Parts: sequence; structure tokens; C-alpha cells
Amino acid sequence: MKNNSSFPSPDNWLPHRVSYGETDAMGWVYYGNYFELFERGRGEYIRTLTGMSYFDVEERGILLPVREASCRYRAPARYDELIMIRTGIQEWGRASMTFVYEVYNETKEKMLASGMTQHACVNRNSKPVRVPEWLIEAFGNVNE
Amino acid sequence: MKNNSSFPSPDNWLPHRVSYGETDAMGWVYYGNYFELFERGRGEYIRTLTGMSYFDVEERGILLPVREASCRYRAPARYDELIMIRTGIQEWGRASMTFVYEVYNETKEKMLASGMTQHACVNRNSKPVRVPEWLIEAFGNVNE
Amino acid sequence: MKNNSSFPSPDNWLPHRVSYGETDAMGWVYYGNYFELFERGRGEYIRTLTGMSYFDVEERGILLPVREASCRYRAPARYDELIMIRTGIQEWGRASMTFVYEVYNETKEKMLASGMTQHACVNRNSKPVRVPEWLIEAFGNVNE
Amino acid sequence: MKNNSSFPSPDNWLPHRVSYGETDAMGWVYYGNYFELFERGRGEYIRTLTGMSYFDVEERGILLPVREASCRYRAPARYDELIMIRTGIQEWGRASMTFVYEVYNETKEKMLASGMTQHACVNRNSKPVRVPEWLIEAFGNVNE
Repeated sequence: MKNNSSFPSPDNWLPHRVSYGETDAMGWVYYGNYFELFERGRGEYIRTLTGMSYFDVEERGILLPVREASCRYRAPARYDELIMIRTGIQEWGRASMTFVYEVYNETKEKMLASGMTQHACVNRNSKPVRVPEWLIEAFGNVNE
Repeated sequence: MKNNSSFPSPDNWLPHRVSYGETDAMGWVYYGNYFELFERGRGEYIRTLTGMSYFDVEERGILLPVREASCRYRAPARYDELIMIRTGIQEWGRASMTFVYEVYNETKEKMLASGMTQHACVNRNSKPVRVPEWLIEAFGNVNE
Repeated sequence: MKNNSSFPSPDNWLPHRVSYGETDAMGWVYYGNYFELFERGRGEYIRTLTGMSYFDVEERGILLPVREASCRYRAPARYDELIMIRTGIQEWGRASMTFVYEVYNETKEKMLASGMTQHACVNRNSKPVRVPEWLIEAFGNVNE
Repeated sequence: MKNNSSFPSPDNWLPHRVSYGETDAMGWVYYGNYFELFERGRGEYIRTLTGMSYFDVEERGILLPVREASCRYRAPARYDELIMIRTGIQEWGRASMTFVYEVYNETKEKMLASGMTQHACVNRNSKPVRVPEWLIEAFGNVNE
């Protein structure tokens, strides 16, 4: 898989079973639902790498609302399929961070979708703040 | 329509266009999505009859979390169909209230689903409280 | 857990991580989303007990559309919580079947919700048909 | 509003009431739900400009699956808010078309989000086909 070479390290894989509710009348996962899949991958990534949940991050006063999101759809995912969601961090900004995602079939041989979400780093008053050191450190100095 | 005779008065009708995202691989509105349709009908009912939104009710310190919900599915609703959601209040309890719903096709000739939601009346600390007089009065002494 | 005594056997447990997308502005899992949780439990139940997926059942010409669904909400489920979905079959009708569900917290000590879905058994033309023997047998003569 | 000048003509506006189910634990519309809002705007655009629904387009053998989608989030949309979804066609490709969207508050003074979806044009066998003349003509030679 050529495109894997450019995926940031460390990454994390989350298996997910497609429900009927996630499909649409075309018989595939509805295009808008990929962003919840990305969110599932992101939550698992944070939990696995930092030992904290995103909920814990919020408890410490830092919120990471999505500022931009995109997805490229390559092949349909069907009902009852076990799909694999891959997550990584592509970039740390001064007051933002960017996650990237790839969704594969069960055997990880066929990419179904890829995408990104860029997050602002804000405090409880929705003011942009510098990404705190404890958050970057929690990710183990990813990408260094 | 015989069954109309038993629907509580006053009632309210909300038109709703079925989106692709609301359908599933069977080609119809996913069964779980009817409860969001009920919520849309309920919100419109509160707004129309009381002049307040449910948001305003929450602002005054009263929350109405759902305690029980049910739906009976009679005929499928398809993508792009304009459906009609009918809402009424069936019962006021001491610390609860019960909404009922019917979903029809565009011409209101064919019932697609019917259901109910029972709501607890609680304060901000999630403690059950008596339904406040201002709320009952806002609904114009419905069912009296 | 007293209420377990009445839950039909065999049962099946499915762990599920609550996503942000499943929550609502109250901070808890949105009431309508429990029906997708039930569907996830049901799908896993069918897969585990019969070795077939619901998709396979459809491939053999049998559809099981939901005719009725209900849920009783007992305690809220929060973002990032790992919840446990329990599923069983309560009743086989001539042309229908009834699943029951319970949702617990991670340790299975606190019940968050319980509910049921009744399904018609129909062919590809949406005509009610008798529940086929191969389907009942696939479930290993549950409840006998 | 400067950025309006670059929005393709003709455009179409669809009012949409935010439901509780569309919000998340942050209290705002969940980021993934904007793509269903875009789909609602797109469906209304097709219906208004062509007199056909997307369902009719599918009936004539043309499917328009989403190939790419993106959204930029500018300000949160809250429960019960009436939001305005603006839709236009930005580009016709040989076998594709691109819709663009803007979401505003009720008075159209504040932009909440903007985005795009690019669609492949395929036949029932999922083979890419040239955008048919009747489809382009149905849109009244938009952008010419």
C-alpha cells in the first residue's frame, strides 16, 4: 500500500462494525457518517496514546472544536462490514492540530475513504489558546 | 380517518422532507430516526402553543428528559417524501407529561407511524419536580 | 441484579463506546440513538448465535422490518463511556419475532435503559410469511 | 457580505430548524451533521431548479454519489435555531459536478459554515458516465 508511507506515525487502528442505521438508500454508509467514524478513530487515538480520553482533556479546560473537515470517498462500505479506521496526527499548529484518517476494509487491503479534521485549541470561553505543553507531551512528542 | 377521533386536542402538524441521510439500506426511513421526527414535532408543538421554545423552558430551570418512548411502524416513508408529523399532549402527570405523535404521508390520508414519549419533569439537579403551573398554563390548559 | 432473572436465554453482550455524535446538548446519549444501539446488539446476537449476519438472512429472501419499538430510559449514558448492550429473543410469533434489550454501564452493575423491538417476517415483496424453520433452527431452538 | 459575490448563481435558500438530535454534548450542531444539512440544501436546489427530485434523477438511471466533501466551521449553530442553507452549483465536469454551500443564521447576516461536495456521475452499474444533456438542461444551463 503505497499511500501508507505518507501516513504519520504513530498511528492507531480502530475496528468498527457498520450498522443498518449508518447506511442509506443506496445501500452504503451515508457520506456524512464518515465524520462520526473519524471522531471514533480520533477518540480511540487519544485514549490509546495519552491514557486520557477527550473528555479528560475537556475537564482540564481545553476544548478542540473542529474548524475544518474533509473526506474523499473511494469505495463504498456496506452494512455489517467490519471496517478499520486509522488515525494519526499530521500537524501541530500554535493554536490548532490536524488529525488525518483512512478507512479500510477488514483486511486493510482496500482503502474506502480518507480524510482530515483540523481543530482549534480553545479554552472554556471559546478563546483560542496555545496548545498546552501537557497535551503535546501526552502524545509522546508525536512526529518528532 | 377514524383514529383521528382519539387524538388529543389541540394538535399541531409539522411538514418534514425526508433526507437521504434519514433512510437506510432498505430504502426507507430508518426506524430509529422516527424518534427525532417525534422530537421535531414536539419542539414545533411547544413553540406554536406556548410561544416559548423548549430551550426557553430549560432556561427557566425545567428539563423534560424522555423516560419512555415507543413507536408503531405502519408503512414505510421514502426518500424525498414530504411527511406530516402530528403532535399532541395526552396526559399531564404530577411530575411528568406524555406526548403522542402520528406521522402521515403528504395528503394526511395514510398513517405511516404512531408513537408516544413520556417525559419526567426535573430541575437542573435532575431532581423530579412537580410540573410548574406556568408550563401547564403556557399550553392553555390543554385537555381541560 | 434481580431483573436479570427474567431476561431470555441465551443472551449476548456487545460492548459499545459512546461517541460525541451520539450525545446531545444535555450531554447524554440522545434518546433516539438507543434504537441504533439495539440494532447493533441485535446484529451481533444474530451473528454470534447463527453464524449468519442479518445481511445473509436478507440474501435468503427473508426481511425482518421493525413493526414496533420501545425504550425505557433509566440513567443517562455519557460521552466516551463504554456501555454494554444485552440482547435476547423473547418470543417467536407465527410471522413475527420479538427481541429484548438491556443497556448497562461498563461493569454491568447499573442498568441505563431497556427496550424491545418486534419484527414482522416478510418476503422480498413485503408480504408477511411464516418464520422459516431454518431461521428458528439457526437460533438453536432458543427458549425451548 | 463580500463572500456572497463569489457564490454561483442561481442559488437557493432552505430554512432548517435545528433539532436536539442534531446537537452534541458541546451544545452545538455536531460537525458531522452539516453534511446532512448540505444534502438537504442540495435536494431542495435540485427540486426547485429542475422540477425533478434527486429520486427522479436516479429513476432515469443516473446516480450522483459523493466523491469528496468538505466543510469549514465558522460559528456554532444551537438547538432550536432556524438556520438558512444556501446551495449552488460551482462546476460541471465531464463526468462530475460540484455543489457549494453556505449555512447562515436566520437573518442571513452571520455565516456559520461553508462547504462543498463533488459528485461522480455514474450509471446503475456504478460506471462513470458523461453528465447527460437532460440533466444540465434541467438546471437551466446554470453558470452560462
